[in-house]
Amino acid sequence: MAKKIGVLLSGCGYLDGAEIHEATLTLYFLDRAGAEIICMAPDKDQADVIDHNAGQPQGDPRNVLREAGRIARGNIRDVAKVDAAELDGLIIPGGFGAAKNLCSFAADGPSCSVDPGVSTLVTRMHAAKKPIGALCIAPAVVAKILGADHHVELTIGNDKGTAEALGAMGAKHVDQVVDDIVVDEGNRVVSTPCYMLATGPAQVGAGVEKLVAKLLAWL
Amino acid sequence: MAKKIGVLLSGCGYLDGAEIHEATLTLYFLDRAGAEIICMAPDKDQADVIDHNAGQPQGDPRNVLREAGRIARGNIRDVAKVDAAELDGLIIPGGFGAAKNLCSFAADGPSCSVDPGVSTLVTRMHAAKKPIGALCIAPAVVAKILGADHHVELTIGNDKGTAEALGAMGAKHVDQVVDDIVVDEGNRVVSTPCYMLATGPAQVGAGVEKLVAKLLAWL
Repeated sequence: MAKKIGVLLSGCGYLDGAEIHEATLTLYFLDRAGAEIICMAPDKDQADVIDHNAGQPQGDPRNVLREAGRIARGNIRDVAKVDAAELDGLIIPGGFGAAKNLCSFAADGPSCSVDPGVSTLVTRMHAAKKPIGALCIAPAVVAKILGADHHVELTIGNDKGTAEALGAMGAKHVDQVVDDIVVDEGNRVVSTPCYMLATGPAQVGAGVEKLVAKLLAWL
Repeated sequence: MAKKIGVLLSGCGYLDGAEIHEATLTLYFLDRAGAEIICMAPDKDQADVIDHNAGQPQGDPRNVLREAGRIARGNIRDVAKVDAAELDGLIIPGGFGAAKNLCSFAADGPSCSVDPGVSTLVTRMHAAKKPIGALCIAPAVVAKILGADHHVELTIGNDKGTAEALGAMGAKHVDQVVDDIVVDEGNRVVSTPCYMLATGPAQVGAGVEKLVAKLLAWL
């Protein structure tokens, strides 16, 4: 039986949604390993819409689930309607969308709020001892949900300010290089820095390949 | 010296722009091979905007170059301002954007028109004997530009109607399986079916990896 792995997206484009290379390479390595992929995202407006060339806000509002469907080729579900019992594992790619649409870490830091559907799913996955992978800045989401009660160990690379913010949410940050992972065996959480440090998609792929292999090895 | 490879994008999302997995995996394998990547796209409105979950048109117009910048992380140029002399090779990922925004093949078939910047760049790359790679439906763009004068040999997989349309533009279509390439040594054109046949990103990656390796082997 193929393992069912959820991929939690936060839009489409790293400045206001899911980082496209991280998301796509997650799908690539999962598919190559024979996993069944279930893409999901919150069904709500994005926190903002950014012109990725100008780096400036664009006018028209966009829906997180609809934009994430571009990465998922339309095969995507509302995260609020996904039950942890359906999944064997969950991976959260990064991009500012993870810190803007899955939670409000980008705006609010350690006192951020988390999307209710995301919070429920991550909490239940962890309670069922099902593994969770987090890329780039997505460990901030996991830290906010699981940090206070479970002191989850994870990495966002080596940025001091962000690492301290994860610590303020109860998580333990561990510095890591771009092409490697940090593994919390007790909590079954694996993380890798991706574009917190990467200079291009090859470095992203090196970390994601290891993260996917470790997550599937738990199953 | 790293080889400079252009990647010609047509938006962001397979129903109205560049296919995201094909585009990202092209960048991944190029980066892994040490190539320098120059992303580009036409600076104009998309032919349409499609909600990828509903499969229906969305209201707001979007600019091809701006949306493609989501895949390129903002590091992208107007194709009309890229000189063939700057590049060692060119790859065109697929998605309906290739047949809607780079040319009008999706609407007009063999009598389609081609974006002038795209036409000029492909014509000059070919004239300079610099290799061109085309994924999925993007061989239609190459067939329209080079078919009549150079009878370029390429594949879009095995779809009879599309293959005949390429033939009507002067190209020679060769059936191929999803994880392999068709090579026209004389014209230095390589193509692979990707999502014309693929069921997921692993199959796309298998074809793209071979296409990138072949293209770089010409240099």
